Amino acid sequence: MTEIRNAVVLLSGGLDSTTILAIAKEEGFVPYAISFRYGQRHHIELSAATRIAENQQVAKHIVVDIDLAQFGGSALTDDIDVPKSASADVLNTDIPVTYVPARNTVFLSLALAWAETINATDLFIGVNALDYSGYPDCRPAYIAAFEQLANLATKKGVVGDQRIKIHAPLIELKKSEIIQRGVELGVDYALTTSCYDPLLDGVACGQCDACLLRKRGFEEAGIKDPIAYRDGAHFS
Amino acid sequence: MTEIRNAVVLLSGGLDSTTILAIAKEEGFVPYAISFRYGQRHHIELSAATRIAENQQVAKHIVVDIDLAQFGGSALTDDIDVPKSASADVLNTDIPVTYVPARNTVFLSLALAWAETINATDLFIGVNALDYSGYPDCRPAYIAAFEQLANLATKKGVVGDQRIKIHAPLIELKKSEIIQRGVELGVDYALTTSCYDPLLDGVACGQCDACLLRKRGFEEAGIKDPIAYRDGAHFS
Repeated sequence: MTEIRNAVVLLSGGLDSTTILAIAKEEGFVPYAISFRYGQRHHIELSAATRIAENQQVAKHIVVDIDLAQFGGSALTDDIDVPKSASADVLNTDIPVTYVPARNTVFLSLALAWAETINATDLFIGVNALDYSGYPDCRPAYIAAFEQLANLATKKGVVGDQRIKIHAPLIELKKSEIIQRGVELGVDYALTTSCYDPLLDGVACGQCDACLLRKRGFEEAGIKDPIAYRDGAHFS
Repeated sequence: MTEIRNAVVLLSGGLDSTTILAIAKEEGFVPYAISFRYGQRHHIELSAATRIAENQQVAKHIVVDIDLAQFGGSALTDDIDVPKSASADVLNTDIPVTYVPARNTVFLSLALAWAETINATDLFIGVNALDYSGYPDCRPAYIAAFEQLANLATKKGVVGDQRIKIHAPLIELKKSEIIQRGVELGVDYALTTSCYDPLLDGVACGQCDACLLRKRGFEEAGIKDPIAYRDGAHFS
């Protein structure tokens, strides 16, 4: 009889988090998916997260309400316009205006709280240091620091011989490599949404940073992106 | 003209957090108080926090809703009975059932998010390693790990020359020393509440761990506790 290993997977409904859910299952974990309603403008992603959780048959999916918008400070929750990068020059090293203050720290903390109560020592997060080089909380040093904190913060980490592990299997991958890995694992990317600024019916704008990164990733992978874009272009 | 330094102060409405609010002001910070409605049974503490924030004239006080009860796992949010320690033997090294999974990590993360948006690099938290030796997230190593994380997680920490600092000025103090310090700073402890299991009108039970620690602290400090207890005893 093999040991059952639960894992908490941060599931936004986007391409990256959907891929890590498939990776967690591939590695033998029983996935518990957690999503956040945090005042995001692109809340349509929560519908995508729900579809994906059903499609990938997670043990449980919860959506946690946490109003980051009351703090202000980001184009994703404020009235600051989401930038359109006609030049696709999104791989900069400045911190973008779409950065949400301490978002991954808040999300990982809540995932950690849930992990403690479902007897899980493994958390999966779809951060990526290449595409999101401007976000401080998407870097390997940040993930290592959170893992260290988690092992000082919790019963599991302090008592007993189990260590909490933060899995960030996409952190060093290119978007095209993420897509290729997901396709190998049977991920249905038609269920995912990436756009920061979608229409009400969920159609992606095709012009924000997230859309441009996604389109470029599919293009480089040589795979057709199954979702539609407002501007009609699959390959920009 | 002196520089204005904002600080985020975690304010539960209890004795410790009220003392750190006074300490933050004494050190010259403009205090922004943050409290959490997290499904706690002793939610009466939020009324206390509001009174204290007004009394100490903070720049702003926010109460953040975060439903930790949906995760389960603690006597403070579940239907597990709060233990009554007739022997007052509460200074044990086991992790108590009143421990809430990852609570301080969740609270500090949200405080950090607010700090970023109000241009603050200082956070104050009233954790105490002596009285709460059983809580992993009240220890110096935990606070140091969170500070390290915060400086990797945020714009302020990553860009520029300012470091984020987590102030835990009570961490090595005895309860009686905390009370003496607060009285020196003019704290009105009549406004505070400590009980884990108060009556509906807010009267403290006098028997839970938090009440016993508080009563012992005032007794050792030789100061009269200004609040009432259900059992009528100020000195147990």
